[in-house]
Amino acid sequence: MKNYFSSDFKLGILGGGQLGRMILTETQKFDIYTSILESNKNAPCADICNNFVIGDLLDFDAVYNFGKTVDVLTIEIENVNIDALDKLEEEGLTIYPKPKNLRTIQSKANQKNFYFDHKIPTAPFSHFAYLEELVICLETEVINFPFVWKAARFGYDGNGVKVVRNFADLESLPNVECITEQLIPFKNELAVIVARNSDGETKTYPVVEMEFHPEANQVEYVICPARIKKSVAKKAQEVALKVVNDLDFVGLLAVEMFQTETNEILVNEVAPRPHNSGHYSIEASYTNQFEQHIRSILNLPLGNTESKVAGIMVNLVGEEGFSGDVFYKNLNDILKIDGVTPHIYGKKETRPFRKMGHVTIVNKDIDKARKVAQKVKETIRVISK
Amino acid sequence: MKNYFSSDFKLGILGGGQLGRMILTETQKFDIYTSILESNKNAPCADICNNFVIGDLLDFDAVYNFGKTVDVLTIEIENVNIDALDKLEEEGLTIYPKPKNLRTIQSKANQKNFYFDHKIPTAPFSHFAYLEELVICLETEVINFPFVWKAARFGYDGNGVKVVRNFADLESLPNVECITEQLIPFKNELAVIVARNSDGETKTYPVVEMEFHPEANQVEYVICPARIKKSVAKKAQEVALKVVNDLDFVGLLAVEMFQTETNEILVNEVAPRPHNSGHYSIEASYTNQFEQHIRSILNLPLGNTESKVAGIMVNLVGEEGFSGDVFYKNLNDILKIDGVTPHIYGKKETRPFRKMGHVTIVNKDIDKARKVAQKVKETIRVISK
Repeated sequence: MKNYFSSDFKLGILGGGQLGRMILTETQKFDIYTSILESNKNAPCADICNNFVIGDLLDFDAVYNFGKTVDVLTIEIENVNIDALDKLEEEGLTIYPKPKNLRTIQSKANQKNFYFDHKIPTAPFSHFAYLEELVICLETEVINFPFVWKAARFGYDGNGVKVVRNFADLESLPNVECITEQLIPFKNELAVIVARNSDGETKTYPVVEMEFHPEANQVEYVICPARIKKSVAKKAQEVALKVVNDLDFVGLLAVEMFQTETNEILVNEVAPRPHNSGHYSIEASYTNQFEQHIRSILNLPLGNTESKVAGIMVNLVGEEGFSGDVFYKNLNDILKIDGVTPHIYGKKETRPFRKMGHVTIVNKDIDKARKVAQKVKETIRVISK
Repeated sequence: MKNYFSSDFKLGILGGGQLGRMILTETQKFDIYTSILESNKNAPCADICNNFVIGDLLDFDAVYNFGKTVDVLTIEIENVNIDALDKLEEEGLTIYPKPKNLRTIQSKANQKNFYFDHKIPTAPFSHFAYLEELVICLETEVINFPFVWKAARFGYDGNGVKVVRNFADLESLPNVECITEQLIPFKNELAVIVARNSDGETKTYPVVEMEFHPEANQVEYVICPARIKKSVAKKAQEVALKVVNDLDFVGLLAVEMFQTETNEILVNEVAPRPHNSGHYSIEASYTNQFEQHIRSILNLPLGNTESKVAGIMVNLVGEEGFSGDVFYKNLNDILKIDGVTPHIYGKKETRPFRKMGHVTIVNKDIDKARKVAQKVKETIRVISK
């Protein structure tokens, strides 16, 4: 058996953002030496990992050379140089998630093809090398309005996704490789996180629900467990598990899905790492997603994914109109409320819509948690000084 | 309102051991810049705080100079140079717990006098400047066997405490200032942690119970909640709260108590900081003791001290007969069990009886947790490679 704890073993992580920071809490708990590659010297992980290396995650040499210094390599962001990972893997380095899975997931076109090849339910789509190609198809009515446009690569947190209803909506879009998806009316946006280790053991987290602002069409609350029928939840978990097994995936996979108006489950997209939809697990679950990520990539036994209490997560996002040194206004007011835990990611400067932190609300009663979450959302403001 | 989060504010901590390490998890969560003074360059906090300063905690200049670099100063160990703290406080530095409280607590004789002066129930005691004085009192039968001997200063984790039944038992004891206490038969050893901020807000954690090995007379399990009558628990919490209020304490105070055979509560001793008896709170409580410590010393609103689930803590202590590079044997086997979380403190070398980590077991059913705790205890071994 490998000895990871208080040993010479070195875990490498590509990326030093907030997900890395929350992984570090767990590697510290287990005393696993952790080295991080990241381009931003002020990134959330900078001060608190064992070893911090500055370098570009998309640069072959930076990733390759970093990989040569560690015993197991993982990621906290999927936009990394996969050619370097392929070479490291060939040379014997253990890398989870696997480079081939990252290659499939990095491209939304590849993801969609994968779902179709494996009969995983997803919305119909078309694939275009450039926006110009899409325009031609619209002009010739091969494709019709409305549809969802997605950049094929490097979309992140809703950037790179747009609902297109007419030619005017196309004007702001970049002329890059893209897919279009049929616009399917849905009742709920759901997510399921599945962990799998290299022995093939799997554990599935409960289904979470994204509650949207009724007007702004923005996710306001991530709610665990989702307030849906058991049969729908079971179906969502089965679909997520099928994606993980069909990918022969090792690590943590967050599967985002739609529940259609006819209670079908359609896979939207996946993320091969800890995910915003699992942040609630730090306070609510027996084993949080960050510890589970560590367990899965090191082929340790997986932990219990059940919840101790209901959990709701609210993102702390930089308010419009404020830029510069961050100030968390009214943070004290939310600390007064039972079961409220803020997480501050350590970004010194706020910008409009920048993800600066999140707040978890836990309660034995999910309806009480939902009321508290609304109060939290209405109280705290991420502004500048 | 002071702005502690992602700001220029600097929190100083005297001591960089495992308690400091678990405090750092919370300062990282809140992005509070933390600087640590510690004499051991390989201490558990060394790699993971924002700033690590090497220096002797008992040296006036080391503590004073360190104090001049921070905005608020706290401790994770009480054996520090208090003269330096007095001077820093005079010069305007905010220090919690207060130096005057540390002075009272550092000396077990002062602690006992404090309890008597404030009518806080505690076992009768005598105070001696040297062991030689105690010997004279025994020879003249002013004091009689058996009794509990305690070093007045710098006792830690059971060192400096001995049950003395005859003159032979005295031989191994150092010739230092000491107290003797009447040996009182007790049913249970209990502890209560109370938090108080400088606004005077207080929050009291549930009573925990130390379960001893039936033969070895060593604490095996810390169990929350204690399996005692509600009326006894209420009395224990009231006594702990009285100690905190009478001390005019700010910070976290762990109050260790005996439940006598007649259900009296007697204060044994106190620790002015997060405490081994509160480690269960990381997994079991709405607000764990380390976050609560931060909240209390920064005069933030205090968090909910209730538990989500029952929690039991097992210490991971270096096994007799093993010294050198640590190896946590059978750690994988305990990771297989639901609700089991190991905490590894980051000490690279094990020694007999050295505290190397702890394991928390949580479950909705305390009896199930107790069974799992026993399995954990019987499975994991802290040895050397």
